[in-house]
Amino acid sequence: MNETREVAVLRYGHRPGRDDRMTTHVGLTARALGADRVIFPDNAGQSVETVRGVTDRFGGPFVVERRDDQRAVVRNWQGVVVHLTMYGEPIQDVEAEIRTATPAGDDALLVVVGGEKVPWALYERADFNVSVTSQPHSEIAGLAVFLDRFFQGEELDREWVGADRRVVPEATGKTVVDAGTEGDADDGD
Amino acid sequence: MNETREVAVLRYGHRPGRDDRMTTHVGLTARALGADRVIFPDNAGQSVETVRGVTDRFGGPFVVERRDDQRAVVRNWQGVVVHLTMYGEPIQDVEAEIRTATPAGDDALLVVVGGEKVPWALYERADFNVSVTSQPHSEIAGLAVFLDRFFQGEELDREWVGADRRVVPEATGKTVVDAGTEGDADDGD
Repeated sequence: MNETREVAVLRYGHRPGRDDRMTTHVGLTARALGADRVIFPDNAGQSVETVRGVTDRFGGPFVVERRDDQRAVVRNWQGVVVHLTMYGEPIQDVEAEIRTATPAGDDALLVVVGGEKVPWALYERADFNVSVTSQPHSEIAGLAVFLDRFFQGEELDREWVGADRRVVPEATGKTVVDAGTEGDADDGD
Repeated sequence: MNETREVAVLRYGHRPGRDDRMTTHVGLTARALGADRVIFPDNAGQSVETVRGVTDRFGGPFVVERRDDQRAVVRNWQGVVVHLTMYGEPIQDVEAEIRTATPAGDDALLVVVGGEKVPWALYERADFNVSVTSQPHSEIAGLAVFLDRFFQGEELDREWVGADRRVVPEATGKTVVDAGTEGDADDGD
């Protein structure tokens, strides 16, 4: 989040068609749970459009980047690199150490979320290989738990800027208001 | 998790083909993050096979059910029903109340994860409509954060029974051992 630690999420690898929804959900999860930007592979154009569209409607700041040189992005990253993998160290054992290694105001933390098989060099380059359980499940779930723990829940209270609509949380209802006037607006989806 | 609170996850709605990976990831996330079972729609046969296969290899107990009467499952559920939706009350405001409402030994908690649009009756039947942020993101991410918070991280230390392989967490490596003898075994994927 912007006043605190800066976090970028890199989606490593993407197969157009097959991975579109997974890659889009990685980007939307990064945005919703406190990251400042997502870096998509060059061939993930549909996910770029979807996540930018959500940011236009529901607010930011959140940046969607598109890069064709993912290996170079990771290799040359100035800050700390976390690689989420079921083979890594348990999140509950290393989360405090990762926070200590990434104080607010420092270079951004890069969180790498693998899609297709990632090269061994990534395991070696990462400052932390981190597992959210050592079980096979979902890179989206792993990213979500990582971000919620890294930010210690503060991301859930984030304010959004430049939104044109806002959901009003309630026990039973589906209420969306215009973010500018707080008047009624329709759901739109 | 089995010695503590019993939790079932219901994937509501599924479009074969388009939703296969999302539904599979919902099931794998439920298993990895402490739920006791997942209930899939009748038309999600491929996800049933995948999640059962992972349970066979990596352990349980975890039950994969297939039901064609999702509305009835929700309507007739004996325990507490939580519906995850971006329109609901913030997780951070209601998580303690949900734990209080579902003591260990009580009827299982049902967590409903919507796929396609869910009927209004579900909002009314749910004891809690819960949001993990009021932002559009991913039902997989929402489920992951919900379970991690509901179990207060205890699910990350779960032991697995009947596995034939086990990943050894490490700072840099990809080590999988035979779960019975703890000798070497290959990755298998």
